[in-house]
Amino acid sequence: MRVLVLGADGYLGWATCMHFSARGHEVTAVDNYFRRNASKKLGCPPLIPTPGLLRRAKIWKETGGNAIRVLTGDITDYEFLLSVFGRCRPEVVIHYAEQPSAAYSMMHRNAAAFTLQNNLVGTLNLAYAVKETGAACHIVKLGTMGEYGTPGIDIEEGWLEIEHKGRKDKFLFPRQAGSIYHTSKIQDTDLLWFFARTWGLSVTDLMQGPVYGISTEEDGMFPDLMPNFNYDEVFGTVLNRFVVQAVAGHPLTVYGKGGQVRGYINIKDTLQCVYLSSMCPPGPGELRIFNQMTETFSVNELALMVEETGNKLGYGVKTEHVENPRVEQEEHYYNPKFTGLTDLGLKPHYLTGEVLDDMFRLVANYKERINRNTIFRGIRWR
Amino acid sequence: MRVLVLGADGYLGWATCMHFSARGHEVTAVDNYFRRNASKKLGCPPLIPTPGLLRRAKIWKETGGNAIRVLTGDITDYEFLLSVFGRCRPEVVIHYAEQPSAAYSMMHRNAAAFTLQNNLVGTLNLAYAVKETGAACHIVKLGTMGEYGTPGIDIEEGWLEIEHKGRKDKFLFPRQAGSIYHTSKIQDTDLLWFFARTWGLSVTDLMQGPVYGISTEEDGMFPDLMPNFNYDEVFGTVLNRFVVQAVAGHPLTVYGKGGQVRGYINIKDTLQCVYLSSMCPPGPGELRIFNQMTETFSVNELALMVEETGNKLGYGVKTEHVENPRVEQEEHYYNPKFTGLTDLGLKPHYLTGEVLDDMFRLVANYKERINRNTIFRGIRWR
Repeated sequence: MRVLVLGADGYLGWATCMHFSARGHEVTAVDNYFRRNASKKLGCPPLIPTPGLLRRAKIWKETGGNAIRVLTGDITDYEFLLSVFGRCRPEVVIHYAEQPSAAYSMMHRNAAAFTLQNNLVGTLNLAYAVKETGAACHIVKLGTMGEYGTPGIDIEEGWLEIEHKGRKDKFLFPRQAGSIYHTSKIQDTDLLWFFARTWGLSVTDLMQGPVYGISTEEDGMFPDLMPNFNYDEVFGTVLNRFVVQAVAGHPLTVYGKGGQVRGYINIKDTLQCVYLSSMCPPGPGELRIFNQMTETFSVNELALMVEETGNKLGYGVKTEHVENPRVEQEEHYYNPKFTGLTDLGLKPHYLTGEVLDDMFRLVANYKERINRNTIFRGIRWR
Repeated sequence: MRVLVLGADGYLGWATCMHFSARGHEVTAVDNYFRRNASKKLGCPPLIPTPGLLRRAKIWKETGGNAIRVLTGDITDYEFLLSVFGRCRPEVVIHYAEQPSAAYSMMHRNAAAFTLQNNLVGTLNLAYAVKETGAACHIVKLGTMGEYGTPGIDIEEGWLEIEHKGRKDKFLFPRQAGSIYHTSKIQDTDLLWFFARTWGLSVTDLMQGPVYGISTEEDGMFPDLMPNFNYDEVFGTVLNRFVVQAVAGHPLTVYGKGGQVRGYINIKDTLQCVYLSSMCPPGPGELRIFNQMTETFSVNELALMVEETGNKLGYGVKTEHVENPRVEQEEHYYNPKFTGLTDLGLKPHYLTGEVLDDMFRLVANYKERINRNTIFRGIRWR
């Protein structure tokens, strides 16, 4: 299958390229290096120094992998995206090419405007490119569980039948997000749903919870092939950040009461989910939505697990409840459904002491690269 | 009260400025002339030639009105918007400054991208300007009934309590729109709801149905003060277009079966609604939503009424069912609630033969300016 990965230099991007490539697919990797550059500017580049995509593709091939085509550019430039479609003629597009950080989107107006523009015009361009090139092409877009927020009712997988005054209809599940970034993801779902209905596009939207993990099967523990692992408040996810804080002797920064519950997923399972979705596309005109997570934890539970593993390894981990810079509920109901992807064949890697142990050992190799000052800067929502 | 009208050169903008000014309020009018220029480029300028805002404000003053401050610029330029806030220190902002046409947004990718960018970054900037200037300022944003689409359940005013598996919560009413423009309006509602929750902004969102009418009380039938009345497929609304088609001897172009039902409102009532909302702001952190319409009609019903009045006036009106260029349901359930604004004091002007008669007589004065070729061009959704 011809696979186009947009946002191939992000945390999930390169790992996804290798995952498809290792299974015999023809992969094209595209990025504009926004995240890599932005995290550098913020003084917090990825923990493990990784080369750019061209060099990674070369190393991948040298270590026995198939060729991966690399194209550098920005998909909000429609002419560029059309040229990518011309070269790669994708059968499936994995769309990661969005500004992915809630904290970044809340830094200031420019960052908020960039997030809206980048995420929405990028997604719009993708829909147009599929339509205008006539490609019979399935779009797999990464969404986020954050689109739903923390409603007082059970969270279904994307859709809800609503009965009201004796009549019924089916709608997108109500969404109400906690940042400009998360709101932009509600909005790109709305865009793709419009194009599915109106143009008959075939779309999968993967509502993913926070991802954790550093290494995937395909990188063979070879640092140059590992994910771009950010650990700071802006581009890092919470569990990854906690492990790095523990290794650096920095207290784990729990926001407020720490009762915030989310659905989590191992990066290895992200790859499975994206792959399984790609192998089994929805029909034309269908927006298929899966909740992409394998278990739920509160922030306090995560901190406790990291403390336990860290202390066993001799780190003397402390947890600190800091004033919550975000505006969010710190104690709430949370009951999401997430059976769609296991029905499709996902075999979850759950969060165990062993998994944390592996993360600690890998992070420890890069301890001297940790920038303690930027792990937590307290970007405020208000 | 200090009132800032963004998008003051549009169909509703200048009429709104006069309406507030006539009631003793200090009005600032802002526009970048996008709509005026775009409709000229499309070969379909407003039917009644009207001068720009500076000249209108001068005429308004000469005819006994209060001074209206005019500032020319683009609110997607944040520095410009901040300078407007500095000059005018608004207590209420009427936000019309969006690309308002469904057909325009569906013309091509550039128009779609412009619509998203203009409508979302403009709305984002407005929220930031209110927050960063510390203005105790109520935002009144024009939404559209089109955000709801045509669901199979009754349409409430913005909010819906949902019971699911024995639990309850209140959400924005499910929305699913029929164009990129309408989708951008779902999205700006999501943005303002986020800022209401997160920053405590006070927001009214007016979900307006298609507006009709040419003259308002304040223009005194003086053409230079009349609304910018577009009648074509792109910037005109359906009833206005039908009246112009009838006068021009062009068949009324009903899309498909003509069973599409919508909620309509006279431009005089739009002014009342915006005024009443401004005089009675919601509390901080509240997003208050009204459905702004006074009665419902199917397209066939509108065509029939225009035929009747037109034939009485000797126009020999014909109706033609053209292939629907849009993707929409042509027969559907439609039962919106719209009591909030009448509760606030709205006294509706309903659509009568007399109202249509007045519209016909006014349009007839400008018959030679009608461009028959651009009334219907069939911009296709697919």
